[in-house]
Amino acid sequence: MIIAKEISKVKENVREWKKQGLSIGLVPTMGYLHEGHASLIKKAREENDRVIVSDFVNPIQFGPKEDLATYPRDFDADCRLCESIGADLIFNPEPCEMYEDDFHSYVGVNTLSEGLCGKSRPIHFNGVCTVVTKLFNITEADRAYFGQKDAQQLAIVRRMVRDLNYNIQIVGCPIIREADGLAKSSRNTYLSENERQKATILHKALEQGEKMVRDGETDANKIVKTVRDIIESEPLAKVDYVEIVDWNELQKVDKIDGPILMAVAVYIGKVRLIDNFIVENSIVIEMV
Amino acid sequence: MIIAKEISKVKENVREWKKQGLSIGLVPTMGYLHEGHASLIKKAREENDRVIVSDFVNPIQFGPKEDLATYPRDFDADCRLCESIGADLIFNPEPCEMYEDDFHSYVGVNTLSEGLCGKSRPIHFNGVCTVVTKLFNITEADRAYFGQKDAQQLAIVRRMVRDLNYNIQIVGCPIIREADGLAKSSRNTYLSENERQKATILHKALEQGEKMVRDGETDANKIVKTVRDIIESEPLAKVDYVEIVDWNELQKVDKIDGPILMAVAVYIGKVRLIDNFIVENSIVIEMV
Repeated sequence: MIIAKEISKVKENVREWKKQGLSIGLVPTMGYLHEGHASLIKKAREENDRVIVSDFVNPIQFGPKEDLATYPRDFDADCRLCESIGADLIFNPEPCEMYEDDFHSYVGVNTLSEGLCGKSRPIHFNGVCTVVTKLFNITEADRAYFGQKDAQQLAIVRRMVRDLNYNIQIVGCPIIREADGLAKSSRNTYLSENERQKATILHKALEQGEKMVRDGETDANKIVKTVRDIIESEPLAKVDYVEIVDWNELQKVDKIDGPILMAVAVYIGKVRLIDNFIVENSIVIEMV
Repeated sequence: MIIAKEISKVKENVREWKKQGLSIGLVPTMGYLHEGHASLIKKAREENDRVIVSDFVNPIQFGPKEDLATYPRDFDADCRLCESIGADLIFNPEPCEMYEDDFHSYVGVNTLSEGLCGKSRPIHFNGVCTVVTKLFNITEADRAYFGQKDAQQLAIVRRMVRDLNYNIQIVGCPIIREADGLAKSSRNTYLSENERQKATILHKALEQGEKMVRDGETDANKIVKTVRDIIESEPLAKVDYVEIVDWNELQKVDKIDGPILMAVAVYIGKVRLIDNFIVENSIVIEMV
């Protein structure tokens, strides 16, 4: 497996692979890889001749009060995981390699970035779109793999690719969970043992919400209230948001009559966790 | 020559050309082509196996009070010119082909977009960067050709390409002028006969400014005043800006000690014209 710290080294390899007519799959990550990332890398491995994993804690997607400095890192472990799955190249640049002092460019997606996590993280998705654009251009990937865990990010990147005519296919992959239902996340490492136990409340609440949708409930506010009540029954949990939005423009809906995303962001102690489910075929269609 | 109205048709041809290992040059234009555009297309013709000219009046780079509706168009004449130079494909999409109803993405460059034309046209360069990004992705061009007439645009597109790691070379081409010095522009067609004569004042003033720089004057404000005074000696002329900025970050300079852009925007009657010169090697270096 090639370890590349420089953009030019990635581009060199990509040029060679392209010359040979090989397809390239990209898995963009912030490192500290877990089974969620592993599932993306495996999928990329199945579908492409060459697999690039980027491993970069992207500073411009963190707000000034967020956890950039403390975000967990373990590059050696990341390399072992990538190598074991058969990735061909891991790209681990320094921030100054990605952002020169006079870096001024930005990419973003309006509307979809404004609600959900965008409300409390106003610069986040601009930072994501900008780094993802860079990674697309550096790797010239044919496919890029994103987890549904970050559902808003997935929707935004898909829209960006469609709007700006990128020649890349965005592959969304299902949420990978711990045995007790907690969605895998690098940030789970911040949780104390007690918080870790209580954090399962997100998934429990969402399971109930998803059951309601599948049972035919179309009153979004009723489902939101149920899910919120379940989460708030846990004293350690503080809701940032609980929302049902349409799975296209990510705008709040009152009535469910098409594909929807139900998403939650919850503080367990000081740790902010997110989880969600997507129902692509609304009950209206399913009942036919 | 292929005439393409659909993005998919361009992409089809590009895919075929890429498969054959051919290089592609792109000349992005808003149509109503004149000798300035022709010089770009000729240069692209010399340097690439295939040449694409885009011919699209990009609505999102016009402000609400600007001349989108009246911007001159003559697609048949454009086709004849492109064909005569040997362009391989002209891309002439409808606005709805480029921007779907739920289009939300944007690309931009801070700092460089804020001064000069950016001051009176606050959304302009965001619109330019967004459409240029689309054109780069649609055409997968190896080189793209921009006139120095729009010097700020050239600087911004170059920075965007560097910052976002586009695999494309930006080729800047010299300003093409009428016999009496007026910079060629599609907007010159708006000028009355009298205004057309008086419009030469921009070039006359800039010639004097450039002479001062080359003669060793390093006081930017003195040069700016001289150029402004010459322009304002013409009663029909109303200055939007006269500025000297550094040719990297496009920030105002008081003292010339490196590459600079001197740029002017002037209303002749109701018609806004721009012109400029760039001195890449400052006098300090030239005197060695």
